[in-house]
Amino acid sequence: MVKRREKILEEMKAKIKKSYLSRDNLLVFADNASSDLEKQANILFERLTEWYGIYFPELKLDDRSKYCNLVLQIDKKKMQESKKAIQSLMGDKSSSIISQLEHTMGSEMQEKDIETIRMLAQQILTLEETMEQIEQYKESLAKEVCPNMSEVGGPKIAAKLIAHMGSLEKLAKLPASTIQVLGAEKALFKHLRRKTKPPKHGIIFQHTLIHSAPKDKRGRLARALASKLAIAAKVDAYGKGHFIGNELRTDFQKRANDILNAKD
Amino acid sequence: MVKRREKILEEMKAKIKKSYLSRDNLLVFADNASSDLEKQANILFERLTEWYGIYFPELKLDDRSKYCNLVLQIDKKKMQESKKAIQSLMGDKSSSIISQLEHTMGSEMQEKDIETIRMLAQQILTLEETMEQIEQYKESLAKEVCPNMSEVGGPKIAAKLIAHMGSLEKLAKLPASTIQVLGAEKALFKHLRRKTKPPKHGIIFQHTLIHSAPKDKRGRLARALASKLAIAAKVDAYGKGHFIGNELRTDFQKRANDILNAKD
Repeated sequence: MVKRREKILEEMKAKIKKSYLSRDNLLVFADNASSDLEKQANILFERLTEWYGIYFPELKLDDRSKYCNLVLQIDKKKMQESKKAIQSLMGDKSSSIISQLEHTMGSEMQEKDIETIRMLAQQILTLEETMEQIEQYKESLAKEVCPNMSEVGGPKIAAKLIAHMGSLEKLAKLPASTIQVLGAEKALFKHLRRKTKPPKHGIIFQHTLIHSAPKDKRGRLARALASKLAIAAKVDAYGKGHFIGNELRTDFQKRANDILNAKD
Repeated sequence: MVKRREKILEEMKAKIKKSYLSRDNLLVFADNASSDLEKQANILFERLTEWYGIYFPELKLDDRSKYCNLVLQIDKKKMQESKKAIQSLMGDKSSSIISQLEHTMGSEMQEKDIETIRMLAQQILTLEETMEQIEQYKESLAKEVCPNMSEVGGPKIAAKLIAHMGSLEKLAKLPASTIQVLGAEKALFKHLRRKTKPPKHGIIFQHTLIHSAPKDKRGRLARALASKLAIAAKVDAYGKGHFIGNELRTDFQKRANDILNAKD
């Protein structure tokens, strides 16, 4: 009797360990972490530009890492070196930045003030590095966990869709029409409540073919992509290693060409 | 005529530069950045514990930096080294953690999975370092910008109060009763709308004497501290370097002793 109990316990333990192990789980965690990191880098970057604006308010750049590197290297007391740094970082944009620096309305700061701001810039650069590495990991994991979806929609979108549902299995159970608007729940519920137009795409809007398409074609493109992704998800979840990703991708590209070339 | 125009422009430029320079401004930026960093370290730490929970779910620690260091050093494939690392980090708590590790229900992971998690742990440690350095800067800046307030309520609370209002001057114009509840606006408006009890303290609750006091004394302690802080703020803003911080602090401590010793 005792032995049987122990055996059952052992079996349960093994089952729990196995359920932990499922690698789509890891994909969900990695995706959550990387979207948190992205949000945080945005927030800190905003703080940095406000703060650094006391010293050099004219500097406006959307490129986070270039801005941070300029913060690290510009020093009004060492104009020659600052100019060199700007030139090597900014190429042909450098002359306008240099003239802004020469006529800046920003005020001087003590060394410890500017050092603290540089620390924040350094922190943002470190965040970007971590983000980059997690992103690479995510893509390689997606190719392993859901090779078909990764082939059809790209590993980033595949990872985001799985993370949104929490597991590959849950995603595989959804119809294409739901996959099409995953991530656009807000717009969907607004549609249901107030009779606004329904959303045409959620996460899959991030696909290059869709967000670069003319606005009136996007809905049809999204539907075409979602239908292929739905098939791919089912194959990834239940296909036991079967791979039809390349066929699905070719099908989608043909359909996309038809949609883009259609006159209406 | 042209010369006069240029002269006026120069003067205005100088004025703008001066207004940028006011160092309480820097205190506001530093405080905003450090509260953002604190929030973000919390969020990322939560992500880390979820994620690492696949590998070692039994590990529970509130100490962020110790947890992160354990994540960096524990490796189930190298039990001897992991044990040593746990011992040197955790002292007398180490034996329970070691036995948890030996009987963990967590599952194995591939090297690249665990490496990615370690990257996140490393990121959190870097955030903590930056936070620590900005905190030190903030304190030294507070002692410079508002020496009286820093003496009475501590540099942290002084910095937070100024950051909350956006400038020392704005803070100096407030009556003590407002300073008492700064940072508790949510509770205050709830009180005004729904007749709940008014808040007794906002930011100044962080003062050791107040948050360690019995609940029924906190309101009076907060009022006493706020009244001294209100005076200190006015001296810091308009006192031209005058310092009465130590007297104010002695007064507050006497009053606090009276309140704590009063029987009611």
